Amino acid sequence: MTATKTELGNDLNDEVSNELDMGIDALQSKYAAGELTPAQVMEDIRQRAEQYKEYNIWIHLLSQAEQSQWLSELAHKSPDTHPLWGIPFVIKDNIDLAGIPTTTACEEFAYVSEASSQVVQQLIDAGAIPVGKANLDQFATGLNGTRSPYGACHNAFDFDYISGGSSSGSAVSVALGLASFSLGTDTAGSGRIPACFNNLVGVKPSIGLLSATGLVPACRSLDCITIFAYNTDDANLVLSMAEGFDIRDGYSRANPFANQARQYGLRTGELKVGVIPAHQLKFFGDESYQKAYEATLEKLQAEGFQFQEIDFVPFDETAKLLYEGPWVSERYIATQPLIDENPEAIFPVVREIIAPGGKPPATALFSAQYRINDLKQICLAQMAQVDCLLTPTAGRHFTVAEMLAEPIKRNSELGYYTNFMNLLDLASIAVPTMMTEANRPFGITLVGSTFSDRMLMSIANRIQQALPLKKGALDVMATPTNKTPVASTKTMDVMVCGAHLTGQPLNWQLIERGAILKSSTTTAPIYRMYALAGGPPLRPGLVLDKEQGAAIEVEVWSVPAENFGSFVAGIPAPLGIGKVTLEDDSQVSGFICEPCGIERATEITHLKGWKAYLASL
Amino acid sequence: MTATKTELGNDLNDEVSNELDMGIDALQSKYAAGELTPAQVMEDIRQRAEQYKEYNIWIHLLSQAEQSQWLSELAHKSPDTHPLWGIPFVIKDNIDLAGIPTTTACEEFAYVSEASSQVVQQLIDAGAIPVGKANLDQFATGLNGTRSPYGACHNAFDFDYISGGSSSGSAVSVALGLASFSLGTDTAGSGRIPACFNNLVGVKPSIGLLSATGLVPACRSLDCITIFAYNTDDANLVLSMAEGFDIRDGYSRANPFANQARQYGLRTGELKVGVIPAHQLKFFGDESYQKAYEATLEKLQAEGFQFQEIDFVPFDETAKLLYEGPWVSERYIATQPLIDENPEAIFPVVREIIAPGGKPPATALFSAQYRINDLKQICLAQMAQVDCLLTPTAGRHFTVAEMLAEPIKRNSELGYYTNFMNLLDLASIAVPTMMTEANRPFGITLVGSTFSDRMLMSIANRIQQALPLKKGALDVMATPTNKTPVASTKTMDVMVCGAHLTGQPLNWQLIERGAILKSSTTTAPIYRMYALAGGPPLRPGLVLDKEQGAAIEVEVWSVPAENFGSFVAGIPAPLGIGKVTLEDDSQVSGFICEPCGIERATEITHLKGWKAYLASL
Repeated sequence: MTATKTELGNDLNDEVSNELDMGIDALQSKYAAGELTPAQVMEDIRQRAEQYKEYNIWIHLLSQAEQSQWLSELAHKSPDTHPLWGIPFVIKDNIDLAGIPTTTACEEFAYVSEASSQVVQQLIDAGAIPVGKANLDQFATGLNGTRSPYGACHNAFDFDYISGGSSSGSAVSVALGLASFSLGTDTAGSGRIPACFNNLVGVKPSIGLLSATGLVPACRSLDCITIFAYNTDDANLVLSMAEGFDIRDGYSRANPFANQARQYGLRTGELKVGVIPAHQLKFFGDESYQKAYEATLEKLQAEGFQFQEIDFVPFDETAKLLYEGPWVSERYIATQPLIDENPEAIFPVVREIIAPGGKPPATALFSAQYRINDLKQICLAQMAQVDCLLTPTAGRHFTVAEMLAEPIKRNSELGYYTNFMNLLDLASIAVPTMMTEANRPFGITLVGSTFSDRMLMSIANRIQQALPLKKGALDVMATPTNKTPVASTKTMDVMVCGAHLTGQPLNWQLIERGAILKSSTTTAPIYRMYALAGGPPLRPGLVLDKEQGAAIEVEVWSVPAENFGSFVAGIPAPLGIGKVTLEDDSQVSGFICEPCGIERATEITHLKGWKAYLASL
Repeated sequence: MTATKTELGNDLNDEVSNELDMGIDALQSKYAAGELTPAQVMEDIRQRAEQYKEYNIWIHLLSQAEQSQWLSELAHKSPDTHPLWGIPFVIKDNIDLAGIPTTTACEEFAYVSEASSQVVQQLIDAGAIPVGKANLDQFATGLNGTRSPYGACHNAFDFDYISGGSSSGSAVSVALGLASFSLGTDTAGSGRIPACFNNLVGVKPSIGLLSATGLVPACRSLDCITIFAYNTDDANLVLSMAEGFDIRDGYSRANPFANQARQYGLRTGELKVGVIPAHQLKFFGDESYQKAYEATLEKLQAEGFQFQEIDFVPFDETAKLLYEGPWVSERYIATQPLIDENPEAIFPVVREIIAPGGKPPATALFSAQYRINDLKQICLAQMAQVDCLLTPTAGRHFTVAEMLAEPIKRNSELGYYTNFMNLLDLASIAVPTMMTEANRPFGITLVGSTFSDRMLMSIANRIQQALPLKKGALDVMATPTNKTPVASTKTMDVMVCGAHLTGQPLNWQLIERGAILKSSTTTAPIYRMYALAGGPPLRPGLVLDKEQGAAIEVEVWSVPAENFGSFVAGIPAPLGIGKVTLEDDSQVSGFICEPCGIERATEITHLKGWKAYLASL
């Protein structure tokens, strides 16, 4: 029977995926051209969904009547001001949608919320249209997609294989073109594993970046709502609409880089990326995944990614604490009173995991939290050395049969590269990088510090540029637009040419701000240099003069963004920070001089640099 | 017998305190003048300590031999490079000093560490000399100073009254001139209550600002090492020497404002300060404290403090969770295995508090942490409206007899204004503000968000300027030096004069960074204004010209410090950010223009402002 379903799946795929493009841009172009309406798209989705019934994607697929209010509201919204106008999206069924039951895959737990969750409401406000509530590993407890009384959810590429979970239906629906994007959740990897297995981008934001109001908790201290999309263009747009501080959510945090939200783009230049040493990698016998990972690194190296090994031991120790430590008590709280009063209502393997959660003492939790904090210091110190980490998203892709045979062990193997993430308060993005020889998707995960979400997104864009793939299981390319190059949101470059140069008396003002020397270079040959009156310290002034200028020796320093302001504020007149052109014609923040500064100054352009001037004194 | 001791105490005070000045500056001046040596100071301290034996200040007063190594090392250190050269300090006996027992007031728990705690080592490295290990409420469990088998520690001003705790000996030793400063710790208020009762500044830094390596935990997730000093000058110097990231401490955090550490000064201008509404204040029957508090507010109002009421309910609910919730489990962990194996060795009232700490389940702790996070959002939203909160440090000063009669209830009353602090991850400073009619000290506590330590210190300086008092129980004034005015470390002022003005096309670049319009004013009459070539947007350039300049209409915006850098980075040539002089002759960061910018520009100085120019077009 399984074989039949597989054939059915493949057949259906071949039948419907040609030409189908559910990307946000593609749909919006057709809407703008009058070729399609959102109502037509929704009807088409319902029809195509019929063909995938055996995949167990849905817990509740919305009817036309249930969608009608949002569709009719579109008439009062302009696509110009509603970036998700008419875009269909799927909601994991542990996230509230007003008026529709939230089951978290347990009928006995189900309730109907009057209000949509904060994130769903923001997306609807931006014009997006809910398609349905998706299947999941019950109570979001699993990474595999088989733990649901609504049936195991099947992989979009190979019906015999697991979809990944717990956000199984969310990922498979997008991969099969039944929505443009979807919401999942992620406590241990539920927003990344299904992305990997279904050829999608999976954004696991920093905890608190997206409100958790209206989300049924798994581990409330660790949960995040996540985004599945075909590429980083779509993912970033959805993230921008979904994020925001929410005072009702105790774990919500304002994004300190909110003003740089537009900085999603293409992270160019050399990147230093942390990778796990070979002896700490685990593929659990999946040679095709191991090969795909190695091939991915090879291709990225050719693209300017420099790899630096990090020690995975403290990450792995953290990961183990998630299921072996007292965090299961959070799952216990989340399923009360059901787990106390009617435990038989809970899916057996899920019950087996959650039931002991009432037992650990608070002393065990404090001790585990101490240990996590100690491990976090070691992990973050390693991460501070690199732009991001890069790991396989999963070590092995299991068949449904393999999964069901050893549900706990296999699930634990699935979490080897994912379980540490939220305990360490990191951001991450799963990115598909290639298809295996067996034509199943493989992908990697980029990992960064809290609120590095946009930086990771920009690196993910570069990876999608470098390793082009199709959109999910559809037959159109996923490659995002080649956006303007962006700098890291973490640092800003500043050109210095005088007392802040290496070895000069004010250089400490850069050092104490954690700045790093990026390059010793020269300006474009269009600057005159003056030794200003006054001091100490002696200071130069640069003046743009396209006719009589020279190339002046300067240094470019990379300053942590949050410290750049205080650096600028400390600069006395007549100097300031403006824009300076370097020899490669790039523009960078750097020292400029007011006109009055030149009045009693001595021109030293011919010396072509401050150090030569000092040597001449 | 108590009466006799009181008289003895007062007599001693009268006898020794005249002329004695143990402030850091005072000692260093005498060292510099050759009038005194550190060895003489230490010997003098030991002699004077003899006279205060009945105060139960010490657990271990160091002998000359035990100090000799540090004293002899001073010969190889220069006072110029060792800011605490020869300065005596006292260490609470839950903090390790190499080679000397750490008892945390429990002999059966005592151990000898080979290494000093990180903070003690940093202070010794800076030239400070340990005087002794001070008495404390056992296991730092108490706010009163009576819970020690080494005897209740008595108040420096009135022997019948409690010293406050748990850092009892640390505070009393400094108040009586037996050290220049001391280290305490603070989990629930132990670094603030004894400061209040002994007329000292008590710095409770942000958690993790000072390393906890080598500190016996009370509640490890909440503990901080604190500083007692006579005034903010001394406290800030010690804080600068004591602070620093320590990777060995899981709770250690780098100070994001480290580069502004020199910004301790005098916070001038109007301040908006949150206060507790009258009906939420509690003085537990102590009219003298109520009067002192009211008189303090009156005086500060006259000094430019503007008061705004905040709702204390969420702070109070948080406070109650500290002792009524599962945090006692941390104390249980900290006293294991003693509490399991030999509970009789623990001081009775301390044992009564800690013993139930093994019982709460992890579910109770998670639930309490959820609640704290929810409360924190509400508290922080209120705090975002003001520069800081201001509360009484304690509502009532109890006698030793009152304390012993109802040890748990009275202790809980002492924590009314202090218990919430570390659970909400706030910084605070206790500042003495006046003596009561009964000649006992009263003080207030300033409360700010994480890492607002230096801003609070600068406000505390202003309070010490406005309400001059003596140093502890000594007979010399404590008033700190009137430092250079400083801005808040949280924001930076920037002068805008063109497209960033209110209502102009780039104003959103300020708004989206959370900037606030501070004033509409003019420059000093020394600027010429030009309409630059190019646009949109149209942009002006300001050029300093002391002869032919005018006063130009501008706005000053207050930008969050961490966002100022990205604002600067976004400014295109020929403009930049330098320093501009305003009509009141103050200098502020603001727009300047490169000389080349003026070349094809139109002078519009006569219009005296950008909006007048736009209106003229």
